[in-house]
Amino acid sequence: MVDYEIFELGDIVLQSGQTLRAAKMAYKTYGTLSAAKDNVIVYPCWYSGTHVENEWLIGPGLALDPEKYFIIIPNMFGNGLSTSASNTPAPYNGSRFPKITAYDNVAQQHRLVTEKFGITTIKLVTGWSMGALQTYHWGAMYPDMVERILPFQGSAKCSRHNFVFLEGVRSALMCDAAFMDGFYTEQPQKGLRAAARVYAGWGLSQEFYRIEADIQKMGYASLEDFLVGFWEGWLLSKDANNLLTMLWTWQNGDISNNPLYGGDYKKALAGIKAKAVVMPASTDLYFPPADNAIEVEHMPNAKLHVVDTYWGHFAGGPGTSPDDIKILDIALKELLAS
Amino acid sequence: MVDYEIFELGDIVLQSGQTLRAAKMAYKTYGTLSAAKDNVIVYPCWYSGTHVENEWLIGPGLALDPEKYFIIIPNMFGNGLSTSASNTPAPYNGSRFPKITAYDNVAQQHRLVTEKFGITTIKLVTGWSMGALQTYHWGAMYPDMVERILPFQGSAKCSRHNFVFLEGVRSALMCDAAFMDGFYTEQPQKGLRAAARVYAGWGLSQEFYRIEADIQKMGYASLEDFLVGFWEGWLLSKDANNLLTMLWTWQNGDISNNPLYGGDYKKALAGIKAKAVVMPASTDLYFPPADNAIEVEHMPNAKLHVVDTYWGHFAGGPGTSPDDIKILDIALKELLAS
Repeated sequence: MVDYEIFELGDIVLQSGQTLRAAKMAYKTYGTLSAAKDNVIVYPCWYSGTHVENEWLIGPGLALDPEKYFIIIPNMFGNGLSTSASNTPAPYNGSRFPKITAYDNVAQQHRLVTEKFGITTIKLVTGWSMGALQTYHWGAMYPDMVERILPFQGSAKCSRHNFVFLEGVRSALMCDAAFMDGFYTEQPQKGLRAAARVYAGWGLSQEFYRIEADIQKMGYASLEDFLVGFWEGWLLSKDANNLLTMLWTWQNGDISNNPLYGGDYKKALAGIKAKAVVMPASTDLYFPPADNAIEVEHMPNAKLHVVDTYWGHFAGGPGTSPDDIKILDIALKELLAS
Repeated sequence: MVDYEIFELGDIVLQSGQTLRAAKMAYKTYGTLSAAKDNVIVYPCWYSGTHVENEWLIGPGLALDPEKYFIIIPNMFGNGLSTSASNTPAPYNGSRFPKITAYDNVAQQHRLVTEKFGITTIKLVTGWSMGALQTYHWGAMYPDMVERILPFQGSAKCSRHNFVFLEGVRSALMCDAAFMDGFYTEQPQKGLRAAARVYAGWGLSQEFYRIEADIQKMGYASLEDFLVGFWEGWLLSKDANNLLTMLWTWQNGDISNNPLYGGDYKKALAGIKAKAVVMPASTDLYFPPADNAIEVEHMPNAKLHVVDTYWGHFAGGPGTSPDDIKILDIALKELLAS
């Protein structure tokens, strides 16, 4: 029993020159496509997450209201549902699973939207974190199709600092001998747990950790309880090679790295015609507002909306900070109404 | 040929209840102790550093002028020169090397200063990072002896976020099977390199990495060159158990965790009689100014001086940011003159 559909993509030649054979994209839709096909929202996934972990933002009365909109969540390659190291047979399994860019992901999502549903106009693309990276790609790759974008706590290109943060996560995971260069027989527990502890400092802000109450409200008795239960629990629920696939996608994210823009970052940002609201969180440690401010300067139709919060990267994140999600929901409603 | 002295401490009972047997403190002095013994500066070391790596701040014409002051740099336990896992024979070697607090370090530094030199008044204690942690301890533990303190880019107590950052470093290092629970025969290269990559994101700011020029000025051709040459090079030059000893000291740093203050953090801060200038860096990711602002509220004679810089934790650090060190030097001169 699965709650999602599969779109068969066939063999895909990727930007890396590798071929993703018999590729599949898992997706889920919410609501009904209108006869005019003019009520479409595309909502890509964040790092490691599946469509299920995107659902906190969807519901009657919310901006992403399935009673009004037809919402498509495409699962990223490597997230375990779409084609991933974990579901690919030899010889493309393990560490031989191809390298996939955000461009590759969005190009195939575009096929899903157009070939499967015959959609020509998208009302809104929105996403958190790596979902935001894909959101920017949608805007830059299909400027005449995408009317609005709202990327939150993400960026159009992986910054050098963000790249370094991810190097820490990657190195910790791969340090475990049980990883066996990607050909493990069981998940590398030590590596996943170490990577989770590395991630823990980045995901939430200094102030979040200073305020002890939130961890307790989330059901953790102590900091150590939180590190094990929340952070280690998160990465232990994932596959190591899948995490590394998506990490590579993230590190190499760049809206200009494609034939349309030939590596010209400013040109790619300028190419986004959509009305855009870019929402960083004031205390996000790897997507700091300053990076988004630079982007918005080069986007013709964009507004920067910094969310003042101590929740760091998790401001708009998966349901953990209701106050910040309220702000996000209002911004989504305003943008959709405009 | 060594350039430092050894002070024999005998057997020390530590806060942990463990005994550091035949303990030795390596130290170096600069300048001449005046007849009145009233020109003393104590300048403790930062994480992993030795006295040599503290010397960037000492010189004729600088605030820490050896022609005017008698400057003592005590080496921290675990830094490889003072008693450390790397120079301790069985059975206290490897991971059985005792846990040592900042309180333990400063109590023994006090013995050096008083028993060896007969000093009763200290003009200034100053230090960077973990050196700042020890600086706060000096102020709180010997309030009638220390006239001035200038802790820069450090804190009186390890914050919960800082603790988490260090968990990432520790977990990455210990993830390497070659670490062998501390009983390695060769340094765990993979673990040290992974820990270095974790550290790399924290040590410098998002903005530092955005500005590519500085890495090149430092002699690194690319980001990867910098990660290997600067960061991995740093940790590969250290001993894994020593790094873990000092990391434990850091994580458990707390000026109030001693008989004087019985865990009362505010009381300990209030106990610092010294005239204090507390200097965080605006972009420091693990000692954010907000933490120091809280401290200064509770210190009777302290001023917060935030250094506006993109160098993050390395603002006052070991000679990498000359502009910020100029600001630090001026602040030290002003404090010494007051």
